[in-house]
Amino acid sequence: MKGTLYGLGIGPGDPELITLKALRILRRTSVLAYPAPEAGESLARGIVAGHLDGHHREVCIRMPMVAARFPAQEVYDRAAVELGGHLDAGRDVAVLCEGDPFFYGSFMYMFGRMAAHHAVEVVPGVSSLMACAATLGAPLAARNDVLTVLPATLSSDLLERRIREVDAVAVIKVGRHLQKVRAVIEAMGLIANARYVERATMENEKILPLADVDEDEVPYFSMILLHARGDAWNV
Amino acid sequence: MKGTLYGLGIGPGDPELITLKALRILRRTSVLAYPAPEAGESLARGIVAGHLDGHHREVCIRMPMVAARFPAQEVYDRAAVELGGHLDAGRDVAVLCEGDPFFYGSFMYMFGRMAAHHAVEVVPGVSSLMACAATLGAPLAARNDVLTVLPATLSSDLLERRIREVDAVAVIKVGRHLQKVRAVIEAMGLIANARYVERATMENEKILPLADVDEDEVPYFSMILLHARGDAWNV
Repeated sequence: MKGTLYGLGIGPGDPELITLKALRILRRTSVLAYPAPEAGESLARGIVAGHLDGHHREVCIRMPMVAARFPAQEVYDRAAVELGGHLDAGRDVAVLCEGDPFFYGSFMYMFGRMAAHHAVEVVPGVSSLMACAATLGAPLAARNDVLTVLPATLSSDLLERRIREVDAVAVIKVGRHLQKVRAVIEAMGLIANARYVERATMENEKILPLADVDEDEVPYFSMILLHARGDAWNV
Repeated sequence: MKGTLYGLGIGPGDPELITLKALRILRRTSVLAYPAPEAGESLARGIVAGHLDGHHREVCIRMPMVAARFPAQEVYDRAAVELGGHLDAGRDVAVLCEGDPFFYGSFMYMFGRMAAHHAVEVVPGVSSLMACAATLGAPLAARNDVLTVLPATLSSDLLERRIREVDAVAVIKVGRHLQKVRAVIEAMGLIANARYVERATMENEKILPLADVDEDEVPYFSMILLHARGDAWNV
């Protein structure tokens, strides 16, 4: 019997926002894999640390801190071989995924490499998108609203066109693109509607009107939410 | 001491996809409210039924089966008065929300009526968007993808324009709009990329290529996922 690879959505950061299903599968798998920076602790492992009893073999997938794409691809290639070995030996493997595995997550890269050759099951999780809205106390979208998710990496021009067309916008992965995104939103006269959230549901979460963020650069785990009407429930 | 109103995201349908936090709050609130059709059982209550021990006072918010907006508004007005009475008497109230409370949910209407006068806390949940992707085994969006959520109520013209502009699309609340949405996707030559999901993670879930759905009308809890590249992980 071969093992199953589980992509486990473990939620946005608050350890209580894991699902019963993810927790059950976490407890009964024998191999635990998670992403981590080149040096230092894994955020994903930290989220579930309170539920670990030491029985897992752990595979830490360390990402080099470079913008280039190829080193990352090599890391995923090697991880796929290592996890594939466990599966072939009949061991179930849980891959921890912050938020939801299929919403812009790095699990995609493992999935793309392994789904054709192994049994893979994805357990959906509470994503950062919903966590940010809950933290802000501001609905994302209602009724006939069109909601668009925009990676902050896009050009100013493209950001502006997409924001203009829809009712509700979430700009994700803000990081070092903060100034560009803010300039677009300001020029469109929408800055009063835009709110900034950093590390939603984590202990060090931070929420601010976008106009009041004074850093040049913010964490990668940050998001800007914006509604054309000001608030989604003003229908 | 006044009570707190909790908007509890209870996930997309599988009772195991509730979070530890929603379950903890559910157990310690004394009043439980949930939406239901004009006649028959509440889907939301059914999701958590296995966790109920009979200690709650229950408030069933029954929605008349009419398209008009005003009867619904009256139902929410009355519910807000009833739940407000419990909060004023110091009782905590949990409002069950399928999926996530702030992602196109009807909790919005209670929130809009009550947030200014009462303490309100929203617990994010696993939304149908992420559940459908997990059920399909198909990532929603990756890297620099733009992802747009389109209510099926929009006009054919608007659906086409929005689908043309982005990488990944989720058409929600398909219901009686199936033929219109499918005609748009077919005319754009994208039908081979489109998958249909009904009641994701529930016992009677159903997934099909969009081209193979042969009903004229489908349930309200259905979704079409579409990626311009075919699959989000083909990056």
